[in-house]
Amino acid sequence: MTYEHNFNPTISDKDVFTQIVKEKEDIGYYNLPFQDTTAFKEYAKEVKQTNVVVIGIGGSSLGTYAIYKYLKHSRDLSKKLFFLETTDPIDIKSKLENIDLEDTLFIVISKSGTTVETVSIFKYINSLVTCDSSNTVVITEYDSKLNAYAKIHRMKRFEIPKNVGGRFSVFSAVGLLPLAIVGIDIDELLRGAQETHNDFFGGMWSESKKLETNERLLKKARFLVEYKNSFNINVVFSYSSRLEGFNKWYIQLWGESLGKIDINNTHQGLTPVGIIGPIDQHSFLQLIIQGRRDKTVTVIKVENFDNDLKIPAITLDGLEELDYLNNLEFSSLIKSQADATIESINAVGDIPCDVISIDGVCESSIASLMYEYELLTSLVGKFMYINTYDQPGVESGKIILKKNLGNK
Amino acid sequence: MTYEHNFNPTISDKDVFTQIVKEKEDIGYYNLPFQDTTAFKEYAKEVKQTNVVVIGIGGSSLGTYAIYKYLKHSRDLSKKLFFLETTDPIDIKSKLENIDLEDTLFIVISKSGTTVETVSIFKYINSLVTCDSSNTVVITEYDSKLNAYAKIHRMKRFEIPKNVGGRFSVFSAVGLLPLAIVGIDIDELLRGAQETHNDFFGGMWSESKKLETNERLLKKARFLVEYKNSFNINVVFSYSSRLEGFNKWYIQLWGESLGKIDINNTHQGLTPVGIIGPIDQHSFLQLIIQGRRDKTVTVIKVENFDNDLKIPAITLDGLEELDYLNNLEFSSLIKSQADATIESINAVGDIPCDVISIDGVCESSIASLMYEYELLTSLVGKFMYINTYDQPGVESGKIILKKNLGNK
Repeated sequence: MTYEHNFNPTISDKDVFTQIVKEKEDIGYYNLPFQDTTAFKEYAKEVKQTNVVVIGIGGSSLGTYAIYKYLKHSRDLSKKLFFLETTDPIDIKSKLENIDLEDTLFIVISKSGTTVETVSIFKYINSLVTCDSSNTVVITEYDSKLNAYAKIHRMKRFEIPKNVGGRFSVFSAVGLLPLAIVGIDIDELLRGAQETHNDFFGGMWSESKKLETNERLLKKARFLVEYKNSFNINVVFSYSSRLEGFNKWYIQLWGESLGKIDINNTHQGLTPVGIIGPIDQHSFLQLIIQGRRDKTVTVIKVENFDNDLKIPAITLDGLEELDYLNNLEFSSLIKSQADATIESINAVGDIPCDVISIDGVCESSIASLMYEYELLTSLVGKFMYINTYDQPGVESGKIILKKNLGNK
Repeated sequence: MTYEHNFNPTISDKDVFTQIVKEKEDIGYYNLPFQDTTAFKEYAKEVKQTNVVVIGIGGSSLGTYAIYKYLKHSRDLSKKLFFLETTDPIDIKSKLENIDLEDTLFIVISKSGTTVETVSIFKYINSLVTCDSSNTVVITEYDSKLNAYAKIHRMKRFEIPKNVGGRFSVFSAVGLLPLAIVGIDIDELLRGAQETHNDFFGGMWSESKKLETNERLLKKARFLVEYKNSFNINVVFSYSSRLEGFNKWYIQLWGESLGKIDINNTHQGLTPVGIIGPIDQHSFLQLIIQGRRDKTVTVIKVENFDNDLKIPAITLDGLEELDYLNNLEFSSLIKSQADATIESINAVGDIPCDVISIDGVCESSIASLMYEYELLTSLVGKFMYINTYDQPGVESGKIILKKNLGNK
């Protein structure tokens, strides 16, 4: 009797961690928190323009937007950041109407250097204003065609390393350069990411010193994969409107990394859903509580809001029953709403739910959270036997588009 | 031998349609397209303020936002519309900073009249500016406590009928009043909804005259329910950033209506996902193409963009390979991108996909689309043996919140 098989049953935590430590030598994002930021800060100091426009789509803008959206109302920023990322003509036009293009720095970001949306919009911008080394900077791979273009025109260039994927590039030049220019403390960002890194890799990058973050992320990743057929939807329920950009970034990171054909030739994929509390208590929560048991829920709470506001001790005639809200800080209310949601989900009993509390509206908090999600994505990918870092499924659409447009 | 059972096997198209026609007598949203809009238009004419702030959450704001977001850059609107819908203090503060409250009309919208978020924010507004009949209007049920409050203060009141649920209320005063005030043609909105109504109910509201919309929606609803265990996720892929509000509205409508315990005492629920093209080609598309086969995809295309822009015939040195984009309208590009996505999804072969093309960026188009989605939701609910119109699952969280805050 002979026997052949292509089964790949469950992998151990230890093996996954060993693989991740090994992968860290090749996959670039892991070590980004430790890079030298001098070049970004020095360039940022020189920028005279009031407006900064990022021309970039997907991984070239979502991470930057996530951090900017989270912090912009809590920082006294010197410049305004805008994102041109879609080919919707009404969107492009309405955004440009509010920007003085003569007082704008354009940051053209494309890993491949030939992204259709980015190049189309950059061409359009070229018809409105002269783009040269005084107002245009390029972030791309060192050998891309966009890099060649920028070189010819002596534009300042920053590199996206080959081994850093777009959706994992927020802590490279892609995120750090625009954020440094508008006045975000990028060293604090990296410090937050470093903390998560060290709590996960244990300083000496070995299993000998297991840390809370390490155990927690391995356990969570294993759970999500072991129950992937029951719970194929992973809801992130963020209790702050400031986390709307984070949700979008998470959706790309999770969906594009984990939607893959595995080594057993089977379609895999966990579907990310991002919702915002308390708004979506009035929308998606009903589906969580009474709907089919196909979702895990991660609630993200912000512990300290700055810029707090208090509900005044005003009694509205007829609405006295709501006077229990009087003198409450809005931050207390939103945290109580998060707690009530968590309690009502847990009361149901059969919905997997975890809670992440982040300290406050600051650089290190959002960076820690994002780096943690990058690690979690890598772990889930390993448990799922997929390539977390490629995206072969979107190539066919690009080829079809080029063919169809070429024929016109 | 005796036999008892509580099975409820598949229901026929005809029975579902008959039930819907019967339900139309009790459920209010069906007939909203035929209401008299005079009162809204007359009130709108009197409004002197430049800013209009809707204080309302969930069904009290999402539909209005969807239509406003879709049309605002294509209409010469006389007033600006803002939405206060969350208890996030940073969000409230940053929004209010940009509004001259002395030149603002406040529209307080709450069906129950005691929505925590709405009343909290309204109290806060009361501490900033005097709210009285000159600058405040209320939309609520006729016997709510908010209505009593407004009556005492002689504020103008508009009614949400008892039999119109929040998430189905966009074509009631909830949506029509604020939209009329800022200058949207609400009669054109209703005309668009009427068209879909008539194409579905067949003029004489019977099966004798089956229409395209009728057959299409019944077929689609049946498919979604028959395959609900395979495809528990319904992706709407909208190819225009203007449809971002529509996506959010769809998510509430679908999730909150269809996430229910059915008459067989089983958790049901189809999970809505809303994504935007081409942005999410760089994010979620990979998951659709290569991920697990648990999603249906509906692509929404806009046929005619106004405010079009052309990609100029500029050659960028080194990027000559992208010159095929030259002289293309952005609207052609985004439509070609939608077509390429559809083609690549269909090429895969085992992903259920349908395409809705809407005419243009106008009132009737968006209203037709929204009314169609309301009908589809009702149909799916009937096939699923659930109550589409209640939301019992969110009550427990409200009770917990009140208890926890009351104890403080």
